[in-house]
Amino acid sequence: MNKPSIPQGTRDFNAATIYKRNYIFNTIRQAFQLYGFEPLETPAFENIDTLMGKYGEEGDKLIFKILNNGLDNPNKHLEVTAAFQKILEGKPNKTITERALRYDLTIPFARYVAMNHGQLTFPFKRYQMQPVWRADRPQKGRYREFYQCDADIVGSTTLMNEVELAHLYAHVFNMLNLPVTIKMNNRKILAALADICGGAEKLTAITVAIDKLDKVGIDKVKEELQQRLLTESQIETIADFLKIKGTNEEKLQALTQSIGNHSLGKEGIADLQFILHHQDPTNPLPLEIDVTLARGLNYYTGTIFEVKATDYNMGSIGGGGRYDNLTELFGVPNMPGVGISFGVDRIYDVMEGLDLFPKQLVKGTDVLFFNLGPEESNRAFSLLQNLRAQNISGELYHETAKLDKQFKYAEKKGIAVVVIIGSKELANNNCTVKHLATGQQNTIPQSELVNYLATFESGL
Amino acid sequence: MNKPSIPQGTRDFNAATIYKRNYIFNTIRQAFQLYGFEPLETPAFENIDTLMGKYGEEGDKLIFKILNNGLDNPNKHLEVTAAFQKILEGKPNKTITERALRYDLTIPFARYVAMNHGQLTFPFKRYQMQPVWRADRPQKGRYREFYQCDADIVGSTTLMNEVELAHLYAHVFNMLNLPVTIKMNNRKILAALADICGGAEKLTAITVAIDKLDKVGIDKVKEELQQRLLTESQIETIADFLKIKGTNEEKLQALTQSIGNHSLGKEGIADLQFILHHQDPTNPLPLEIDVTLARGLNYYTGTIFEVKATDYNMGSIGGGGRYDNLTELFGVPNMPGVGISFGVDRIYDVMEGLDLFPKQLVKGTDVLFFNLGPEESNRAFSLLQNLRAQNISGELYHETAKLDKQFKYAEKKGIAVVVIIGSKELANNNCTVKHLATGQQNTIPQSELVNYLATFESGL
Repeated sequence: MNKPSIPQGTRDFNAATIYKRNYIFNTIRQAFQLYGFEPLETPAFENIDTLMGKYGEEGDKLIFKILNNGLDNPNKHLEVTAAFQKILEGKPNKTITERALRYDLTIPFARYVAMNHGQLTFPFKRYQMQPVWRADRPQKGRYREFYQCDADIVGSTTLMNEVELAHLYAHVFNMLNLPVTIKMNNRKILAALADICGGAEKLTAITVAIDKLDKVGIDKVKEELQQRLLTESQIETIADFLKIKGTNEEKLQALTQSIGNHSLGKEGIADLQFILHHQDPTNPLPLEIDVTLARGLNYYTGTIFEVKATDYNMGSIGGGGRYDNLTELFGVPNMPGVGISFGVDRIYDVMEGLDLFPKQLVKGTDVLFFNLGPEESNRAFSLLQNLRAQNISGELYHETAKLDKQFKYAEKKGIAVVVIIGSKELANNNCTVKHLATGQQNTIPQSELVNYLATFESGL
Repeated sequence: MNKPSIPQGTRDFNAATIYKRNYIFNTIRQAFQLYGFEPLETPAFENIDTLMGKYGEEGDKLIFKILNNGLDNPNKHLEVTAAFQKILEGKPNKTITERALRYDLTIPFARYVAMNHGQLTFPFKRYQMQPVWRADRPQKGRYREFYQCDADIVGSTTLMNEVELAHLYAHVFNMLNLPVTIKMNNRKILAALADICGGAEKLTAITVAIDKLDKVGIDKVKEELQQRLLTESQIETIADFLKIKGTNEEKLQALTQSIGNHSLGKEGIADLQFILHHQDPTNPLPLEIDVTLARGLNYYTGTIFEVKATDYNMGSIGGGGRYDNLTELFGVPNMPGVGISFGVDRIYDVMEGLDLFPKQLVKGTDVLFFNLGPEESNRAFSLLQNLRAQNISGELYHETAKLDKQFKYAEKKGIAVVVIIGSKELANNNCTVKHLATGQQNTIPQSELVNYLATFESGL
């Protein structure tokens, strides 16, 4: 047997990491519930038809497909061989693969809503926190298994939903003590810009080009727009638009001058205004209009959001927006909605980088009872059970051993308190309690141990 | 597009089901931590070598294998085609599939320990609560995606570990208010029986036959033993052994008479005795020696456990035991351990069947603010934010609508309290609070709403 290994792009999570990740998960989950979202969980794999064709050609390639079982059935060899030819041509065939791993949470959610819309109460506010899998090339901050945490409101078009989601974003990052900027734009504004610069059919070209601005700079964006056959004057209009700077109010004014005469542009500006005006002026959200925000090639049609950590160099740690129809692809029309997503793996990296995790998150068992012989450990076990009944976590060292071996175990596991019952303590019905951090040591009656530790516990 | 569907043997979990499942998960997790276990999470998929050959031939077939990406690369067509021939012969080939979905939690745990044993503190006590996937034929109570919750202690041979795990089982089912019997046996006893009845090489035959006793009855077991070439007198010895009945003490006596002269048998009996004697006599565990318990074909070598609900007809809802070596398969010797597993999906079915879930688990958002106009809803939103800051969950109805529509939404979502701010309340700076369960209604100043609801909340 070769040395065992873990698949590329995946990770094991040990206790310390899990405690920190759960701190993020719990913070997000509590906020979702506080804002009236209810949980949903979908299976790790979906029927392959549910996923294929939903994420573009590139996405299709990155979906992990599951091999059907029973391909060695001799009665099916001809059929299977023919199907396999299709795989060689890049066309997944159901004789070979009927299932595929979840690629995001949105499509499974859409599939769920399409299947159950008759039973749901609308607006349906669901949250979902589950891993997704992508056959991407692994690199720093990009994994083949990672978590998404999504909250969506479907079946409603009012902008109060966007207001809610902006507040929800701010609430979570506030609870995490993580300073962020919530960037905001509106696809209607980009659509108006496209319309002004050569017609609606240029929207995708403009969106894709603008989306790269951060990475490649304005000159490359101009080049790309040239290749996409925009005229000099159209490109200048776009370049001027991308230069819009200042406070949110200044940006709104500049936008009004730039595209305010276009009806869709006007709507987009009004949408931004509505969201900005629905916040407590004494405690404003970290909302920032960013006219260069495009959110790639996805299905957004109105407001779009993207969250960046202000004090740490990292891509977006959250994003979302409004879409016109969630379930159309599954044959159910008229299901508009808006949603946001939290990138937990990146949030984790930023919080680790900024040292933002509370120190007390990572702690071992509360108490270790030493094992100093059969009689002694029997007594210890019985006291241990009393502690556990009072919700104090504890262990009994698994075998009789020298003191220093047992101390070493307690230290390595970050255990705060050891309880020692040797032959003397056994005879006197007492026990020695030692606090490892301070070295402080007390001998107390066994009957007082629970109360003693319960008091101490509250300070752990 | 066809009507969307969910893969056979998998399930979506809606809010009500998730709350109940989390109640079970949280109870188990808290108990694991109380007993000093630390969490571990491993990836959903492993390298295929890690899993194949670990679960027997039948198990290998039930492992979900993941198709490699890029099989359509023309440069690799010959290689891929040759590899695919192997698949047709039932031999998964790494050119086609390099990864496979987790089939249980034990092998990934073994892989983790083998990879990290230099960094771990032993005895290593880990728990793991994650889904596993099996290409089994779906049927009632058997899913293709289901959760396992395992706790293992590795790197220790002392029986105190078994004592701990028996108490842990009892603790969890006690917290769940679910009456169970923890059946217990010891593989050494079965090994002794095998040795007495024709030699150690008969152990597997005897174990497999005994394991079927519950399902097929003693006569079929005898038949099977005959087919496996045991003599009449050997079969009678086994049949007499399987008839052992009575209290635990009576069973221990009968076992001593039956196999007590065999050294391994004697050890097995002493192991059972040790565990039975390490419990509080005033509050004994629901432990029951079951000499017919065999736990199938797995790797157990000492104590074995199996948990059954006492008041409900369902297969085992938990099982586990001692094994001699966890990591040998991965090249790391001397890693003895013992572990138990909780079958959450079955526990859920039993608790649902016995109506054991606390009623307050399933509740909607605490408060719904009605939306009765732009000004009114602005005021409502600002009050809503105050509530959320006090950890009271709430929603604002998404758009201005008739009262009865908003009442219906609150009812459908199980919301306890609605807050109504109409034009009159807006003018008077008060609000009408209505408790949906009782119909009770009060008009109070807006400034008192948080306190009013915080008080009421504690009774929700």
